[in-house]
Amino acid sequence: MTELESFADIYRLVSQFSSEDAPAVAAWSAREPHLTKPAGSLGRLEQVTRHLAAWQGQHPPVLARLRAHVYAANHGVASLGVSAFPAAVTEQMVINFQNGGAAINQLCDLFGIALSVDALSLDRPTADFTRGPAMSENECVDAFATGMAATDDTMDLLILGEMGIGNTTSAAAVCLALFGGKAGDWTGRGTGVDDAQLRRKTEVVAAGVAKNGGEDPLVILQSLGGRELAAICGAVTGARLRKIPVLLDGYVCTAAAAILHAIRRDGLDHCLVGHVSAEPGHRRLLEKLGKQPLLDLDMRLGEASGAAAAVGLLKAALACHNGMATFAEAGVSGKDL
Amino acid sequence: MTELESFADIYRLVSQFSSEDAPAVAAWSAREPHLTKPAGSLGRLEQVTRHLAAWQGQHPPVLARLRAHVYAANHGVASLGVSAFPAAVTEQMVINFQNGGAAINQLCDLFGIALSVDALSLDRPTADFTRGPAMSENECVDAFATGMAATDDTMDLLILGEMGIGNTTSAAAVCLALFGGKAGDWTGRGTGVDDAQLRRKTEVVAAGVAKNGGEDPLVILQSLGGRELAAICGAVTGARLRKIPVLLDGYVCTAAAAILHAIRRDGLDHCLVGHVSAEPGHRRLLEKLGKQPLLDLDMRLGEASGAAAAVGLLKAALACHNGMATFAEAGVSGKDL
Repeated sequence: MTELESFADIYRLVSQFSSEDAPAVAAWSAREPHLTKPAGSLGRLEQVTRHLAAWQGQHPPVLARLRAHVYAANHGVASLGVSAFPAAVTEQMVINFQNGGAAINQLCDLFGIALSVDALSLDRPTADFTRGPAMSENECVDAFATGMAATDDTMDLLILGEMGIGNTTSAAAVCLALFGGKAGDWTGRGTGVDDAQLRRKTEVVAAGVAKNGGEDPLVILQSLGGRELAAICGAVTGARLRKIPVLLDGYVCTAAAAILHAIRRDGLDHCLVGHVSAEPGHRRLLEKLGKQPLLDLDMRLGEASGAAAAVGLLKAALACHNGMATFAEAGVSGKDL
Repeated sequence: MTELESFADIYRLVSQFSSEDAPAVAAWSAREPHLTKPAGSLGRLEQVTRHLAAWQGQHPPVLARLRAHVYAANHGVASLGVSAFPAAVTEQMVINFQNGGAAINQLCDLFGIALSVDALSLDRPTADFTRGPAMSENECVDAFATGMAATDDTMDLLILGEMGIGNTTSAAAVCLALFGGKAGDWTGRGTGVDDAQLRRKTEVVAAGVAKNGGEDPLVILQSLGGRELAAICGAVTGARLRKIPVLLDGYVCTAAAAILHAIRRDGLDHCLVGHVSAEPGHRRLLEKLGKQPLLDLDMRLGEASGAAAAVGLLKAALACHNGMATFAEAGVSGKDL
């Protein structure tokens, strides 16, 4: 696609977003009511296949080539005592991903998802955002471009996730800047901080937003985000431009995507949300975005695990819509009215 | 197992239920906290693997041999205008199951579940329960025994479901008899009845319970249930006796299982619930049983579809618990406390 050099380039790309594919939706609507079940009785599974058709721009929709991208980065605020784990764990977990030992590896193996892990300059944490912007515009655009580069025409669905010690602090700050409220509304225990650490974390979130004002969504991403958030935002953008539906994961992933919603209200219309995290800010964020998660299982691991866990549901939905017999084919009587 | 001839035989079997396997739970507890993730961060997926270990009586738990049984039967009350579909649809759908055209066929193919469909005397609907008991004790015991016979030692998980025009009316009557309240609390639109039909259906439920009094759970099953409910109750019983965890489906399936909960409060401890149905009585019933469903997706099809849709989650949980690296294996630092 385009070479990206500045926020202006990104805004131009986002202005080119198209809407759902009307012929694919029409073809979906022509088939779904004839399948051998009471109308609507597969509930949200029906809506999943409509979504896939609409955003792949084809009917029947396909889920043959599944790709997960997990972005890892380090955060200046991690040194402020906001996490239960040391910052070194980001890199250790990247190695664990590469060796196949993490939750996301097991889930990708199970569901036939190709996994890519991008470690984004782990040796250069973002700056401490309580003292100034986390990134320069260039750093933010570079990470965004890395995410955009993840998308190509060889995938039917893009699954996104992240790893980064300190990044629920970053997500909370992004949400506070985008949606307002109090820092405590958006700040949770992340990997498991205690009460004192949670108070400290909440102060850090409030201080970051106080220091880095402004309403420009990409400036918020630059000032309070991390490289993995920028990359996810870029990947969601690239997917929209290439007609690839996206499956988002938890709080950090959705906060990154929310930048696009702030730019244009339909910016995440091609995204499904795999699950709602136990991190309380995520539920609040999904309400703001008008998104219903597929799963609600108290998960809070990140690394795309909640999204990957939902892939079985997407496959189930597709199998029913594409494979079921119609009333006419099966000789089943319709509704008795 | 035992030859069943009367309710006394069933009560004797149920009195033999054992509790969860302590060594398997201990082995689960010894492994889970060491996996490379914050403690508890896989949420309910962790509890799923604990459940499977506890009720299979082995660690690691296994999900290699999955079996779904769908029981179909016809109901005397179907002639009272309680369903949106004609009673002939029960048999037509059984043929659709046999031909591979229904939702449950697609889901079983997707997740590697062996599907058995038992049509239970479709040419002999149960009696209209507003005039007397739906079944004789013998008929009820026979259907129960058919369900028990579904379980053998060649399955790691038993998935249960049903098909029967009129059977949400039967489920509502069973729940009203077991748990009290008003008929309207337990009666919903099933396959999609209109307001007038819903009023009629609610009257039928109330009349059935008024006609068939008593508190004996098996007499309630006999009087207000159908053959598929009795078979499911038998299958849940057989699974418990053979250390096979059960995955329940929607309202009718759970109402059938609830008979065992009425007999002994721990009677369903080996059961997971795949989803909560859009049929409103199901959510109320799950609260009474103290069960949390895995999925909440507005499904209301029955035929084990909500349970089968959740099988991907069980596989996901198992893959993580059994396959992830420990902190020590991966060289990942623990919690920074």
